[in-house]
Amino acid sequence: MTSFIDIKAESDFSLQNLPYGVFSTCDNPRHRIGVAIGDLILDLSVVASLFDGPHLRDHQGVFKESTLNSFMSLGRASWDEVRQRLQVLLGSNDATLRDDSDLRAKALVEQSKATMHLPATIGDYTDFYSSIHHATNVGTMFRGKENALMPNWRHLPVGYHGRASSVVVSGTPLHRPVGQTRPDDTKPPVFGPCKLLDFELEMAFFTGPPNKLGQPITMENAEDHMFGMVLMNDWSARDIQKWEYVPLGPFLAKNFGTSISPWVVPMAALKPFMVDNFVQEPAVLPYLYHDDKYNIDINLEVAIKPETSAKATTVCRSNFRYMYWTVKQQLVHHTVTGCNTRPGDLLASGTISGPTEDSFGSMLELSWRGSKTVDLGEGVTRKFIQDGDEVIVSGYCQGEGYRVGFGTCTGKILPAITK
Amino acid sequence: MTSFIDIKAESDFSLQNLPYGVFSTCDNPRHRIGVAIGDLILDLSVVASLFDGPHLRDHQGVFKESTLNSFMSLGRASWDEVRQRLQVLLGSNDATLRDDSDLRAKALVEQSKATMHLPATIGDYTDFYSSIHHATNVGTMFRGKENALMPNWRHLPVGYHGRASSVVVSGTPLHRPVGQTRPDDTKPPVFGPCKLLDFELEMAFFTGPPNKLGQPITMENAEDHMFGMVLMNDWSARDIQKWEYVPLGPFLAKNFGTSISPWVVPMAALKPFMVDNFVQEPAVLPYLYHDDKYNIDINLEVAIKPETSAKATTVCRSNFRYMYWTVKQQLVHHTVTGCNTRPGDLLASGTISGPTEDSFGSMLELSWRGSKTVDLGEGVTRKFIQDGDEVIVSGYCQGEGYRVGFGTCTGKILPAITK
Repeated sequence: MTSFIDIKAESDFSLQNLPYGVFSTCDNPRHRIGVAIGDLILDLSVVASLFDGPHLRDHQGVFKESTLNSFMSLGRASWDEVRQRLQVLLGSNDATLRDDSDLRAKALVEQSKATMHLPATIGDYTDFYSSIHHATNVGTMFRGKENALMPNWRHLPVGYHGRASSVVVSGTPLHRPVGQTRPDDTKPPVFGPCKLLDFELEMAFFTGPPNKLGQPITMENAEDHMFGMVLMNDWSARDIQKWEYVPLGPFLAKNFGTSISPWVVPMAALKPFMVDNFVQEPAVLPYLYHDDKYNIDINLEVAIKPETSAKATTVCRSNFRYMYWTVKQQLVHHTVTGCNTRPGDLLASGTISGPTEDSFGSMLELSWRGSKTVDLGEGVTRKFIQDGDEVIVSGYCQGEGYRVGFGTCTGKILPAITK
Repeated sequence: MTSFIDIKAESDFSLQNLPYGVFSTCDNPRHRIGVAIGDLILDLSVVASLFDGPHLRDHQGVFKESTLNSFMSLGRASWDEVRQRLQVLLGSNDATLRDDSDLRAKALVEQSKATMHLPATIGDYTDFYSSIHHATNVGTMFRGKENALMPNWRHLPVGYHGRASSVVVSGTPLHRPVGQTRPDDTKPPVFGPCKLLDFELEMAFFTGPPNKLGQPITMENAEDHMFGMVLMNDWSARDIQKWEYVPLGPFLAKNFGTSISPWVVPMAALKPFMVDNFVQEPAVLPYLYHDDKYNIDINLEVAIKPETSAKATTVCRSNFRYMYWTVKQQLVHHTVTGCNTRPGDLLASGTISGPTEDSFGSMLELSWRGSKTVDLGEGVTRKFIQDGDEVIVSGYCQGEGYRVGFGTCTGKILPAITK
């Protein structure tokens, strides 16, 4: 499978990938839907009429919209039809686009000239806690090794509702949050800029067609409701979190910003990279059981670029396959009470830590609660994130001679605003 | 201040109230914005052109929309202008509506003939935990009297993000949720219908103009961002909650449905009922401090009507004035890290319990964790909510010869769906 477009082997955006995003350009500030291919974007608003299969024929308008929500709502048969059509249109054997220089000039945009936006209007954002290495690390730090995992952890994918309004697209800078902390338990709490600012290496998936309130999504139809995946950095203010989170969970420690990558990789593109699920012991309750492979081999990496450094230094190499709970289990659990989802809801994995020290997905773990430093080269070290630091999350699946990649999810921390 | 419309002294919808809602009728299924007055609704989509003051002149379109979000976004000066115009238009001294029978026929709809809908598209829903009596009751049950309040409780309004998708308008029936619980700590968890289903008597406010990400709402401008209030029943599955909530807070135990009353009472209508704030000890940090009265004297009541009973029985009489944290403090705290709000976000109080046993705002407290029964008359008792029970929340402020009321927030529990 080759494209008439030149795609390097190490490009994230092969013909096997075809992720969807929302972009604008200087010439045309309208937000529109595109597909990444090599270094280019195919503007679907320009070629909408080419999607004339049985499912899309009467829904071409979804590619004229400014977010992916309507396309997400159409469902798997439509997504598959579009994907197949795209692979033909962008393939080397089809003349429609390949041989029409006028159409190519209108429909293909250089990624370097595009500004990316949030791919969807996010109705609700949920964050899980599904990496056993992360949960064990954090539990060990705070409760000791023997009590690291809470009794419920192996029985259900623990999760909580996050803040949808402050999910931002990669590249959006964020100010260091200000808030209430209690650094000394013997003294009253204090107010000021967060001192223990952290990233969390995560991934998240967008939902597709809605389920009605009261009607759970079952394991059998879970895939029908999953559109695609992005990288995520769930910024966390550890000192604010520690003071506020009892008994109702993280609140302000997380709601000042959550960054996601702009390109949504379709679940279909991830299928070749499904690997064995994590062995779950004890056995899960039947509603959470599935035996098809749904762990995904996605190489993940986090780098930090201090403002004073010319380059970014990798601090973590992890993999999505370390997840204990699968994304299907997350979605089924989320809706088992009858909770409804809407197209464009975002469900995140929680921090994805691997088994080794260099695969931990947060500074909290990498610096082991600030007890050691993380080396950024040139004599620069970190325990937590400093002002001016840019955090760069990247990830890809490695095929034979091609990649299905996610691009990057970046964010720079600006100083706190204090009056 | 009197209206040309006949309004009984005990009507919730006096000329001093004028709450906003979204309704439709059999003749006209379009969702449109109205104002409740006595037993009628003034259809603002019909009279939009009458709002010709400096603020609304160029924004009359907000009354042609199907939700209140755009009107909410306009801000206080606009809200005040509309309210003043409404009090004139509906007052006994103005001829515009009073003497125009054609216009009245078009613009006034009987509430009994209207179907109410959610007043706004809710971007994010947050639930606080701001009643000291409730927090103390629950803490006492689970941790004993000495450790009832967590160390942070008196220093900040504890809250968490809830599920926006499943907020439903009063009258929407909900199925008993199904989920995972662990009734016996020595045995594995089990799966099935919730056995400890509860209501929570709450109120909530809708936000107005947005604040930008990174720019907190301060105490000085908090009121500019508060549109109005509704009644809420935050349905809770206590057995699911107990098993799932450690360490990230309530999740599935709350996400199967949250009911709100359809009429949004403007903050301006509540001003005459502001009373002394709860005395906060120790003193709060400066960002949370305000000395203007912002506790509100709102009489609240919860009644339960079993399917087998002809009438509802009151089980709780409480008051919004029992809140320890004010709504202004909630909003300021919520955004102090820079979290952005959008018009139509919903911030709820948490269960509003008073100091006496008959003022507790949940079955958990009324039955003291199931250790005693709550009498519903005719020999019927309850510890928690049974299938077929309808829970009716009502509330009003009592003025001299008039009320500013909220109507009711009702919801009936249907049996669990089990396949």
